[in-house]
Amino acid sequence: MNYKLMLRTLGRTLQLEAIFLVLPFLVTLFYQEDPRPFLYTILLVALLGTGLTRLKSKPDFYSREGYAVVGLIWLVLGLFGALPFWFSGCFTGYVDCLFETVSGFTTTGASILTDIESLPRGILFWRSFSSWLGGMGVLIFTLAFLPKVGGRTQVLVQAESPGPVSSKLVPKTAQSSQILYLIYIALTVLEILCLRLAGMPLYDSAVTTFATVCTGGFSVMNNSIAAYGLPACEIIITVFMLLCSLNFALFFLVLTGRWKQALGSDELRFFLAAVAAAIAVIFWNVRPLYDTVGETLRIVCFQVATVVSTAGFSTANFALWPTLSQTVLVLLMFLGGCAGSTAGGLKSSRVLLMIRGGLRTLRRLSHPREVKVVKLDGKAVSEDTLNTVFVFFSLYCLVLAGATALVSLDGGSLTTSFTAALACLSNVGPGLDAVGPMGNFAGFSNLNKLVLTLSMLIGRLEIFPILILLHPSTWKRN
Amino acid sequence: MNYKLMLRTLGRTLQLEAIFLVLPFLVTLFYQEDPRPFLYTILLVALLGTGLTRLKSKPDFYSREGYAVVGLIWLVLGLFGALPFWFSGCFTGYVDCLFETVSGFTTTGASILTDIESLPRGILFWRSFSSWLGGMGVLIFTLAFLPKVGGRTQVLVQAESPGPVSSKLVPKTAQSSQILYLIYIALTVLEILCLRLAGMPLYDSAVTTFATVCTGGFSVMNNSIAAYGLPACEIIITVFMLLCSLNFALFFLVLTGRWKQALGSDELRFFLAAVAAAIAVIFWNVRPLYDTVGETLRIVCFQVATVVSTAGFSTANFALWPTLSQTVLVLLMFLGGCAGSTAGGLKSSRVLLMIRGGLRTLRRLSHPREVKVVKLDGKAVSEDTLNTVFVFFSLYCLVLAGATALVSLDGGSLTTSFTAALACLSNVGPGLDAVGPMGNFAGFSNLNKLVLTLSMLIGRLEIFPILILLHPSTWKRN
Repeated sequence: MNYKLMLRTLGRTLQLEAIFLVLPFLVTLFYQEDPRPFLYTILLVALLGTGLTRLKSKPDFYSREGYAVVGLIWLVLGLFGALPFWFSGCFTGYVDCLFETVSGFTTTGASILTDIESLPRGILFWRSFSSWLGGMGVLIFTLAFLPKVGGRTQVLVQAESPGPVSSKLVPKTAQSSQILYLIYIALTVLEILCLRLAGMPLYDSAVTTFATVCTGGFSVMNNSIAAYGLPACEIIITVFMLLCSLNFALFFLVLTGRWKQALGSDELRFFLAAVAAAIAVIFWNVRPLYDTVGETLRIVCFQVATVVSTAGFSTANFALWPTLSQTVLVLLMFLGGCAGSTAGGLKSSRVLLMIRGGLRTLRRLSHPREVKVVKLDGKAVSEDTLNTVFVFFSLYCLVLAGATALVSLDGGSLTTSFTAALACLSNVGPGLDAVGPMGNFAGFSNLNKLVLTLSMLIGRLEIFPILILLHPSTWKRN
Repeated sequence: MNYKLMLRTLGRTLQLEAIFLVLPFLVTLFYQEDPRPFLYTILLVALLGTGLTRLKSKPDFYSREGYAVVGLIWLVLGLFGALPFWFSGCFTGYVDCLFETVSGFTTTGASILTDIESLPRGILFWRSFSSWLGGMGVLIFTLAFLPKVGGRTQVLVQAESPGPVSSKLVPKTAQSSQILYLIYIALTVLEILCLRLAGMPLYDSAVTTFATVCTGGFSVMNNSIAAYGLPACEIIITVFMLLCSLNFALFFLVLTGRWKQALGSDELRFFLAAVAAAIAVIFWNVRPLYDTVGETLRIVCFQVATVVSTAGFSTANFALWPTLSQTVLVLLMFLGGCAGSTAGGLKSSRVLLMIRGGLRTLRRLSHPREVKVVKLDGKAVSEDTLNTVFVFFSLYCLVLAGATALVSLDGGSLTTSFTAALACLSNVGPGLDAVGPMGNFAGFSNLNKLVLTLSMLIGRLEIFPILILLHPSTWKRN
């Protein structure tokens, strides 16, 4: 392992974090709050980061260092990003600060706060801003990482230069990143404008937008989006949550006039069909609970969008809905958004490939002489990619099982334990029962806050990097 | 499709069923109960069966016919096996009769009966005997089927003639079947004797043994095994449930003096380790609920054995245990016994292969130049077998998700809906909440009784045959 190079990379990460921390620092100054939590953190992080970047190292970087360092980057961002919370004295302990920060950077949106509104604006700004940064980080991460493990972001690369170009992915990454940044920032500006026009105050528009476009779901209100009582804002947020669950490469296709190619995406169609089906079933199931068709539809669309996008805002306590609706929402927590979006979960393209691969196996068993490949967007999917999708799902379930068992140590209901683990692993935020939309994660033991923190990281980084980080063979000398 | 040959095969099945029905018919005569339900069924089934066997057909039989007919055999056994229940008038409707019969033949042991003890002895005998027959059928089915889909019963074939003999599997099937029958019958006789000696009445010993060795779990008492209040019997049943969760080929190895080979089985070691770990965790978790260490250990061992063997008897209401214990039991419902046993669930060898395959993928990603194969019992597992294991698990979860969603239509709790679907798919029997050890399946709608009946069949036949039966391409003309 090239430890020095890994430390240098982490040093660069800390330098970046110090720069990002300047924005909440300015917010505390603007609202005349205590700026010291941010000041101290900026100094510490900048010093440590600069120190680490001074290390001299060989430039060799192999796969295992790459995976390990990706996991460590997110971990280090969380460990140091938690310091302003800790210095502020608003949190019970450092574990709570870490949970909340990792929940931000992983765009989960699970919270241990019981009274959010009592916190200073600067602190809440950092909380939302960290999730916005996490969303941007994820876009870049998936761009470089997903093609290797059976996700799909090649669309973007293909869009830039048609033809078989998978080998040219790396040289294109920098350019692709810029396109993603611009789309992300454009969506952010657009949503802030829309929410302002619909009557939300500027500060609230900004922090809510941060939490929407990254599909994080942190709100600065105890009652989340329901607190504003602005139906227009709920509709705007619904639209943006769904937009940010789509593969960002599709926006690039649309912007360059390739509507047809974008709309022909198998993953897009599957995702929209799943969303439409979920809305239809839940609408039928909860219709008697609300007064008008319009109100029911708005509430149902919002909850479906918030869960499938893994944002996790709320306007209704879906933990009180009939069982069928809850089951559908839990299934959506597994599904998540599309690959190459800021959403979490398994990702629609993986679920689609699982279904197609499963059907192919059935056909192979009953028609053993036929040769049949699984296709996506009309192109054959390699057997390696397909197998990795199945392995991915199995590891997802194994991690979920382990996390559920540990969380159930705390003695909450089975539903609480299972949905807490799932909501963190899929980066949704709220689950059901004690961790439902009106509940929070404050009641868990410190051990389980750490277990759930780890689950968020595992889920956010598409499982493999953190598991590789934890695997002893990664740390053995060659 | 060679429909005529399929119908002839079903005719033979019906003839066999008619013969099996003679035994409960004799039991009704012995206890001077109304024999007509059995008499009518025997006549009907024998006539129809003989009629079908008269059909003339070509001898060609391809894969898809094979899978379809396996699914249809179990379905037909259930449809006609339900008739004595229906004719007896003790059940509310035909759907209830079908549920109970399929629950028997699939060795699930889930029941819609609320007062079991009020039923005639002949009817209860058929109920337990059908699950015993199902257990025997499963042994043969897995022998012919598992090698193709990533389970493991080759051990037996290898045991008979050492060396690479997978191609010789089919000619050996008849001989292998006989060995399995003999082991199954020997275990049955042995357990009846043990239970008699421990003080259980003969009739109860017989029906309880039928339900143990097939890991079905039907009891003739409302309070299941707890009703007898005989600790010695509980220990005997625990031992036999665990024995019948092992690959029956291991018994053959032991009987022929190859102890070392049997004890070296990776699957055996993994299974026993999982059982021991589950017992340790639950013992620690529920110790405060019981008086003595001995009582706690006996109760915990019984519940772990009953769930992991997918029998589903009960001596304690584990739905009242702490959440951690319930989570562990739910995980055991997924695991199930070993391949080549009468137990259900995913099977230990599949879970072991999933874990080893998952770790291999992690290693491949971090050390891309290494070539590493997954081994079982020291031999390399083919990539095809490994992939099928992952596909199997994914389809298992997809079926589970669909069944849970449908069952949740009835409005029971999420835990009820999920564990009802899981307990049927894994052929366990009881789940948690409303379908817990002290509950039953009577409260579900007819639609969901049919959904759960189908889930039992899907799980029992290792998923693929029933899904192939339901797949439209199976029924298309070539």
